[in-house]
Amino acid sequence: METEADVEELDLLDDEEDNPLNRKTVAAILYAVDIDDREKLIELMEPLHAADIADLLEQINAYDRTRLVRLYDREFDGEILSELDESVREEVISLLSPQVLAEAVRELDSDDVVDLVEDLEQGQQDAILGALPDADRLAVQQALSYPEESAGRLMQREVVMMPEHWNVGQAIDHMRSNDNLPDQFYHIILVDPRLHPVGNVALGRIMAARREIALADLKEDMFRVIPIDQDEEDVAYAFNQYHLISAPVVDQEGRLVGQITIDDAMIVMGEEHEEDLLLLAGVSESSLTDRVVDTVRGRFPWLLVNLATAILASLVIAQFDAVIAQFVALAVLMPIVASMGGNAGTQSMTVAVRALATRDLTGSNVWRVIRREVLVGVVNGTAFALTMGIIGLIWFGSVRLAIVIAAAMVINLVMAGLAGTVIPIALEKFKVDPALASGTFVTTVTDVVGFFAFLGFASIYLL
Amino acid sequence: METEADVEELDLLDDEEDNPLNRKTVAAILYAVDIDDREKLIELMEPLHAADIADLLEQINAYDRTRLVRLYDREFDGEILSELDESVREEVISLLSPQVLAEAVRELDSDDVVDLVEDLEQGQQDAILGALPDADRLAVQQALSYPEESAGRLMQREVVMMPEHWNVGQAIDHMRSNDNLPDQFYHIILVDPRLHPVGNVALGRIMAARREIALADLKEDMFRVIPIDQDEEDVAYAFNQYHLISAPVVDQEGRLVGQITIDDAMIVMGEEHEEDLLLLAGVSESSLTDRVVDTVRGRFPWLLVNLATAILASLVIAQFDAVIAQFVALAVLMPIVASMGGNAGTQSMTVAVRALATRDLTGSNVWRVIRREVLVGVVNGTAFALTMGIIGLIWFGSVRLAIVIAAAMVINLVMAGLAGTVIPIALEKFKVDPALASGTFVTTVTDVVGFFAFLGFASIYLL
Repeated sequence: METEADVEELDLLDDEEDNPLNRKTVAAILYAVDIDDREKLIELMEPLHAADIADLLEQINAYDRTRLVRLYDREFDGEILSELDESVREEVISLLSPQVLAEAVRELDSDDVVDLVEDLEQGQQDAILGALPDADRLAVQQALSYPEESAGRLMQREVVMMPEHWNVGQAIDHMRSNDNLPDQFYHIILVDPRLHPVGNVALGRIMAARREIALADLKEDMFRVIPIDQDEEDVAYAFNQYHLISAPVVDQEGRLVGQITIDDAMIVMGEEHEEDLLLLAGVSESSLTDRVVDTVRGRFPWLLVNLATAILASLVIAQFDAVIAQFVALAVLMPIVASMGGNAGTQSMTVAVRALATRDLTGSNVWRVIRREVLVGVVNGTAFALTMGIIGLIWFGSVRLAIVIAAAMVINLVMAGLAGTVIPIALEKFKVDPALASGTFVTTVTDVVGFFAFLGFASIYLL
Repeated sequence: METEADVEELDLLDDEEDNPLNRKTVAAILYAVDIDDREKLIELMEPLHAADIADLLEQINAYDRTRLVRLYDREFDGEILSELDESVREEVISLLSPQVLAEAVRELDSDDVVDLVEDLEQGQQDAILGALPDADRLAVQQALSYPEESAGRLMQREVVMMPEHWNVGQAIDHMRSNDNLPDQFYHIILVDPRLHPVGNVALGRIMAARREIALADLKEDMFRVIPIDQDEEDVAYAFNQYHLISAPVVDQEGRLVGQITIDDAMIVMGEEHEEDLLLLAGVSESSLTDRVVDTVRGRFPWLLVNLATAILASLVIAQFDAVIAQFVALAVLMPIVASMGGNAGTQSMTVAVRALATRDLTGSNVWRVIRREVLVGVVNGTAFALTMGIIGLIWFGSVRLAIVIAAAMVINLVMAGLAGTVIPIALEKFKVDPALASGTFVTTVTDVVGFFAFLGFASIYLL
């Protein structure tokens, strides 16, 4: 078997004892699948968390995945589905029998079902919605009516709310007599008579207070209400900035319609980070389980843009073919100037893109940041101009060539600092995601400026 | 005033109504500082969360910062300090009078004090520790004795624990008679007689259960114990993977010594992401408030490494100076091959680095991922070989040149996929952070291979 052999061969990271998916476990599970031993498989999978089972399914190949899911069958629960990466989710759903799928889905909270079905194709979406009881189906359909990546998609409808004038005793009696409390809740949301949330009370504070204390006196200092159409990125920012644990979601009239909890915000934060990281590297939404054709599709367009900018840089070089023909040393040295500029520009740009995402770069400090980056370019540019000047002098024995490369180096590193900062800021201003397009623009600038400055100086000074 | 003028001039992102630090507020605050109006300043700062005040202090310049902190004086509370970025924290602390500092610090939880003092210089650290009551000081000193970035530094000592054999009634009575419950807690940790944690019970479940129900029957399915010396990155992974809200921390003997909550894990996750993103771009720990000299120090070493690799690539070019002198078109086209390889390599590398960080890339799928990346290289390489071949043919009218660039393109894009995946994996295997060093190695490979293949083919086929 291919996968087992691989595991033996390449003793990677997963040999840590406390890793639930260490290679011994994976090998044992795949062996159980191989010999069709359902009991053994269930026994091996039992201690695994749904998130780990989902990871396992993503990591093994499609053939093993099919056999494993078929053998596991009725044991397959909804949580595994909701932990699965989109890229294999459709495949796994299509492997489940309608009954197993229906049962799996009915276990899930409405917000997890929303997350599960929102990216499925229509047929599978209908199959899952059809398996839900009427009330749940309506809840999911309602959530799907909110914009993608909005608070409405992220929230759960289950909340514990109470009138703002209640006291601790009333709250405790109400909760103890209520059979429908959510599985997990940490706050009680206080509402006014029009169902507008006015505060959060942590359960711990209710536990610690006397019965006659008013709930309103126990409200948390930090209370943020989230509009239902707010972008999930802003929701995650608020949780991170204000250390929220849960926050009520309100509709256009300000009425309580659900809540978002920190664990969902944490997932969004992770996704946003991943998206930014990949975009900066010129990779569209990507997953390790993507097929070759999907991977190519996610990267080709970016490489095509890069080809266009590389050709642009080549056109600059082509203007100077006469001087290059005469001094081949220029061809040898010119990639150094461009490469240093590209690197310095990427440094500045990454810092700027990140600071824009975390809202640390604002109108209050933008000029100071630009000035700093330019100064850093001057300092680093001067240092590397001296270094490369000396190296150039030793290598090619020409003072003039040394001066040309030193001058080009300073100019390109200053431009790198300037472009690396101004370009992301300008993109943000024009409502374009800076992570998306900054890299291309910045390296185009540093390539073009680098080649132009170096070869331009050379043609003036050497010819 | 410089800052106000800037704000007027560059109407950046912060004009959103719901942004607490919109430019109107910032301008009003700085104006109050300008005219030394303490009451107005306090009035304007009052609605701001400590995290926003910290952001404000980071965004204004050092001169305004000094005057603002001095004017705000006794209103300055500990939470602002703990929200402040390291880069300005020492500066702000040195502006506070010893009394204000002492009072500010005494408000904080022990884990926040640890986070506050761990990076301070000795003098400031002593001043803050000296302001704490004896018990708190000991707690902080104990926490500081754990390794940096370990669970011991991250945890809070305040926990609510109960014997595993208690029932709901005993739990409620205990909590209601206890004056020392923490401000924020969401779970009760059940312990055995030797203080080993055996389970978590969510407060909400206690609320919903009858008094005679055993706590042990209400335990959460998901329960993870964190060893005190565990790396904080692994802690954040566990919270994210298993959707933990809080988790008990145990010492070497497995005894409960504290707990970590999801909000702290979320902060660690954000920091780890930021670190990876910046490292991939060749930027050491960096902040927007760093001075020019600190920024240079954080970037110079990376640029120096880049210079070395760029020179290596130039040495390759220098081997072919004869053929370049004869065909200047080679100098024009060679950066395209290197640039495409560098970009494709960065794509593969970023996906691999990210997948290693999220533990999606393991022994079970490593060969499949490598094979996929190589195949993607073949497909994209072939596509761009055709494109560049045609462009080269039209531009320079030479079939031979077109064949040379096409062949070099395929080879370099395949190498990019291979190096972009294998290098991060190898680094991880040798316990080097792949985010740290992959970029340099990958672009070195694609530069060297790109120039060598292109110029090598040219010298065989064109001469």
